[in-house]
Amino acid sequence: MPRSQRRRPTLIHPEPNEFDVLDILHALSDPTRMTIVQTLRAAPERACGTFPVDVAPSTLTHHFRVLREAGVIRQREDGNRRWTALRGEDLETRFPHLLDAIVTAYESGLAPPR
Amino acid sequence: MPRSQRRRPTLIHPEPNEFDVLDILHALSDPTRMTIVQTLRAAPERACGTFPVDVAPSTLTHHFRVLREAGVIRQREDGNRRWTALRGEDLETRFPHLLDAIVTAYESGLAPPR
Repeated sequence: MPRSQRRRPTLIHPEPNEFDVLDILHALSDPTRMTIVQTLRAAPERACGTFPVDVAPSTLTHHFRVLREAGVIRQREDGNRRWTALRGEDLETRFPHLLDAIVTAYESGLAPPR
Repeated sequence: MPRSQRRRPTLIHPEPNEFDVLDILHALSDPTRMTIVQTLRAAPERACGTFPVDVAPSTLTHHFRVLREAGVIRQREDGNRRWTALRGEDLETRFPHLLDAIVTAYESGLAPPR
Protein backbone atom coordinates (compact mmCIF):
# COMPACT_ATOMS: atom_id res chain seq x y z
CA MET A 1 0.00 0.00 0.00
CA PRO A 2 1.45 3.43 -0.81
CA ARG A 3 2.52 5.40 2.19
CA SER A 4 -0.01 8.13 1.41
CA GLN A 5 -2.91 5.65 1.68
CA ARG A 6 -1.89 4.13 4.98
CA ARG A 7 -4.28 4.93 7.71
CA ARG A 8 -2.76 7.23 10.29
CA PRO A 9 -3.93 7.18 13.89
CA THR A 10 -6.73 9.58 14.72
CA LEU A 11 -5.46 12.72 16.40
CA ILE A 12 -6.86 13.24 19.89
CA HIS A 13 -7.70 16.78 20.97
CA PRO A 14 -8.91 17.62 24.47
CA GLU A 15 -12.03 19.71 24.86
CA PRO A 16 -11.47 23.14 26.44
CA ASN A 17 -13.04 21.98 29.70
CA GLU A 18 -10.40 19.23 29.82
CA PHE A 19 -7.45 21.65 29.51
CA ASP A 20 -5.04 21.56 32.45
CA VAL A 21 -2.96 24.68 33.13
CA LEU A 22 -0.02 22.58 34.30
CA ASP A 23 0.02 20.70 30.97
CA ILE A 24 -0.11 24.01 29.10
CA LEU A 25 2.78 25.44 31.15
CA HIS A 26 4.79 22.29 30.53
CA ALA A 27 3.99 22.43 26.80
CA LEU A 28 5.17 26.04 26.61
CA SER A 29 8.34 25.55 28.69
CA ASP A 30 10.40 24.43 25.68
CA PRO A 31 12.04 26.78 23.14
CA THR A 32 11.06 24.74 20.08
CA ARG A 33 7.45 24.50 21.20
CA MET A 34 7.38 28.20 22.01
CA THR A 35 8.69 28.94 18.50
CA ILE A 36 5.89 26.81 17.05
CA VAL A 37 3.33 28.81 19.05
CA GLN A 38 4.84 32.15 18.04
CA THR A 39 4.81 31.08 14.39
CA LEU A 40 1.15 30.05 14.61
CA ARG A 41 0.13 33.35 16.16
CA ALA A 42 1.26 35.00 12.93
CA ALA A 43 -0.48 32.54 10.57
CA PRO A 44 -3.85 30.81 10.92
CA GLU A 45 -2.70 27.37 9.78
CA ARG A 46 0.57 25.91 8.58
CA ALA A 47 1.75 22.67 7.02
CA CYS A 48 4.01 20.74 9.37
CA GLY A 49 7.23 21.01 7.40
CA THR A 50 7.09 24.81 7.28
CA PHE A 51 8.00 25.76 10.85
CA PRO A 52 11.27 27.66 11.40
CA VAL A 53 12.72 25.09 13.79
CA ASP A 54 15.85 23.04 13.41
CA VAL A 55 14.97 19.64 14.85
CA ALA A 56 14.62 16.10 13.49
CA PRO A 57 11.15 15.17 12.14
CA SER A 58 10.57 12.66 14.94
CA THR A 59 11.43 15.33 17.52
CA LEU A 60 9.08 17.77 15.85
CA THR A 61 6.32 15.14 15.90
CA HIS A 62 6.90 14.76 19.66
CA HIS A 63 6.71 18.53 20.20
CA PHE A 64 3.45 18.73 18.22
CA ARG A 65 2.00 15.91 20.29
CA VAL A 66 2.84 17.66 23.58
CA LEU A 67 1.24 20.88 22.32
CA ARG A 68 -1.78 19.06 20.88
CA GLU A 69 -2.48 16.98 23.99
CA ALA A 70 -2.28 20.11 26.17
CA GLY A 71 -4.87 21.82 23.93
CA VAL A 72 -2.49 24.45 22.56
CA ILE A 73 -2.71 23.40 18.90
CA ARG A 74 -5.14 21.60 16.63
CA GLN A 75 -3.94 19.34 13.82
CA ARG A 76 -5.82 17.87 10.87
CA GLU A 77 -4.89 15.56 8.04
CA ASP A 78 -5.47 16.66 4.47
CA GLY A 79 -4.37 13.87 2.16
CA ASN A 80 -0.67 13.56 2.64
CA ARG A 81 -0.24 16.69 4.73
CA ARG A 82 -0.86 17.54 8.31
CA TRP A 83 -1.96 21.08 9.06
CA THR A 84 -1.45 22.78 12.40
CA ALA A 85 -3.32 25.71 13.93
CA LEU A 86 -3.23 27.47 17.28
CA ARG A 87 -6.32 26.93 19.48
CA GLY A 88 -6.23 30.57 20.44
CA GLU A 89 -9.97 30.98 21.01
CA ASP A 90 -10.29 27.76 22.99
CA LEU A 91 -7.40 28.79 25.21
CA GLU A 92 -8.78 32.29 25.66
CA THR A 93 -12.21 30.94 26.58
CA ARG A 94 -10.84 28.53 29.14
CA PHE A 95 -7.95 30.60 30.57
CA PRO A 96 -8.38 34.27 29.61
CA HIS A 97 -5.14 36.23 29.04
CA LEU A 98 -2.91 33.26 29.86
CA LEU A 99 -1.37 32.69 26.43
CA ASP A 100 -0.91 36.41 25.81
CA ALA A 101 0.84 36.88 29.16
CA ILE A 102 3.18 33.98 28.52
CA VAL A 103 4.10 34.86 24.93
CA THR A 104 4.53 38.54 25.84
CA ALA A 105 6.88 37.57 28.68
CA TYR A 106 8.79 35.22 26.41
CA GLU A 107 9.23 37.84 23.71
CA SER A 108 10.27 40.49 26.25
CA GLY A 109 12.86 38.02 27.53
CA LEU A 110 14.37 37.68 24.06
CA ALA A 111 15.12 41.41 24.06
CA PRO A 112 17.94 42.66 26.31
CA PRO A 113 16.46 43.10 29.80
CA ARG A 114 16.22 46.51 31.41
CA MET B 1 30.48 18.74 64.65
CA PRO B 2 26.79 19.08 65.46
CA ARG B 3 24.54 19.03 62.44
CA SER B 4 23.34 22.56 63.17
CA GLN B 5 26.87 23.92 62.90
CA ARG B 6 27.75 22.22 59.62
CA ARG B 7 28.18 24.66 56.82
CA ARG B 8 25.42 24.38 54.29
CA PRO B 9 26.05 25.27 50.66
CA THR B 10 25.30 28.88 49.75
CA LEU B 11 21.95 29.24 48.03
CA ILE B 12 22.22 30.63 44.52
CA HIS B 13 19.55 33.08 43.36
CA PRO B 14 19.46 34.46 39.82
CA GLU B 15 19.18 38.22 39.36
CA PRO B 16 15.91 39.35 37.72
CA ASN B 17 17.73 40.09 34.46
CA GLU B 18 18.83 36.45 34.43
CA PHE B 19 15.29 35.06 34.72
CA ASP B 20 14.23 32.85 31.82
CA VAL B 21 10.51 32.54 31.10
CA LEU B 22 10.90 28.92 30.03
CA ASP B 23 12.49 28.03 33.39
CA ILE B 24 9.65 29.80 35.19
CA LEU B 25 7.01 27.94 33.15
CA HIS B 26 8.76 24.66 33.86
CA ALA B 27 8.99 25.52 37.56
CA LEU B 28 5.26 26.25 37.70
CA SER B 29 4.17 23.20 35.67
CA ASP B 30 4.09 20.92 38.72
CA PRO B 31 1.22 20.70 41.23
CA THR B 32 3.44 20.61 44.33
CA ARG B 33 5.43 23.62 43.16
CA MET B 34 2.24 25.47 42.28
CA THR B 35 0.91 24.77 45.78
CA ILE B 36 4.12 26.21 47.25
CA VAL B 37 3.65 29.38 45.17
CA GLN B 38 -0.02 29.69 46.13
CA THR B 39 0.90 29.29 49.79
CA LEU B 40 3.58 31.98 49.56
CA ARG B 41 1.21 34.44 47.93
CA ALA B 42 -0.82 34.33 51.12
CA ALA B 43 2.15 34.72 53.51
CA PRO B 44 5.32 36.78 53.16
CA GLU B 45 7.75 34.15 54.39
CA ARG B 46 7.39 30.60 55.67
CA ALA B 47 9.63 28.03 57.29
CA CYS B 48 10.23 25.07 55.03
CA GLY B 49 8.42 22.43 57.02
CA THR B 50 5.17 24.38 57.07
CA PHE B 51 3.92 24.00 53.49
CA PRO B 52 0.70 22.04 52.94
CA VAL B 53 2.26 19.48 50.63
CA ASP B 54 2.50 15.76 51.11
CA VAL B 55 5.91 14.82 49.72
CA ALA B 56 9.16 13.46 51.14
CA PRO B 57 11.66 16.04 52.47
CA SER B 58 14.15 15.26 49.69
CA THR B 59 11.43 15.75 47.08
CA LEU B 60 10.43 19.03 48.68
CA THR B 61 14.08 20.16 48.64
CA HIS B 62 14.16 19.39 44.91
CA HIS B 63 10.97 21.39 44.28
CA PHE B 64 12.37 24.36 46.23
CA ARG B 65 15.56 24.21 44.18
CA VAL B 66 13.67 24.27 40.87
CA LEU B 67 11.63 27.26 42.04
CA ARG B 68 14.68 29.03 43.49
CA GLU B 69 16.86 28.57 40.40
CA ALA B 70 14.05 29.87 38.17
CA GLY B 71 13.80 32.99 40.33
CA VAL B 72 10.34 32.24 41.69
CA ILE B 73 11.31 32.00 45.36
CA ARG B 74 14.05 33.31 47.64
CA GLN B 75 15.38 31.20 50.50
CA ARG B 76 17.55 32.18 53.44
CA GLU B 77 19.10 30.30 56.33
CA ASP B 78 18.39 31.40 59.86
CA GLY B 79 20.25 29.15 62.25
CA ASN B 80 18.74 25.75 61.79
CA ARG B 81 15.80 26.88 59.69
CA ARG B 82 15.39 27.75 56.07
CA TRP B 83 12.87 30.44 55.24
CA THR B 84 11.17 30.75 51.88
CA ALA B 85 9.53 33.77 50.25
CA LEU B 86 8.00 34.48 46.87
CA ARG B 87 10.01 36.86 44.67
CA GLY B 88 6.79 38.54 43.61
CA GLU B 89 8.26 41.99 43.00
CA ASP B 90 11.25 40.68 41.07
CA LEU B 91 8.97 38.58 38.88
CA GLU B 92 6.60 41.49 38.34
CA THR B 93 9.45 43.82 37.40
CA ARG B 94 10.93 41.39 34.91
CA PHE B 95 7.73 39.84 33.49
CA PRO B 96 4.72 42.01 34.35
CA HIS B 97 1.42 40.16 34.92
CA LEU B 98 2.95 36.74 34.20
CA LEU B 99 2.65 35.19 37.65
CA ASP B 100 -0.83 36.61 38.19
CA ALA B 101 -2.06 35.25 34.85
CA ILE B 102 -0.68 31.80 35.59
CA VAL B 103 -1.93 31.53 39.17
CA THR B 104 -5.35 32.92 38.18
CA ALA B 105 -5.60 30.34 35.40
CA TYR B 106 -4.51 27.58 37.76
CA GLU B 107 -7.06 28.53 40.39
CA SER B 108 -9.84 28.86 37.82
CA GLY B 109 -8.94 25.35 36.63
CA LEU B 110 -9.44 23.96 40.11
CA ALA B 111 -13.06 25.10 40.05
CA PRO B 112 -15.49 23.20 37.79
CA PRO B 113 -15.09 24.64 34.27
CA ARG B 114 -17.90 26.54 32.61
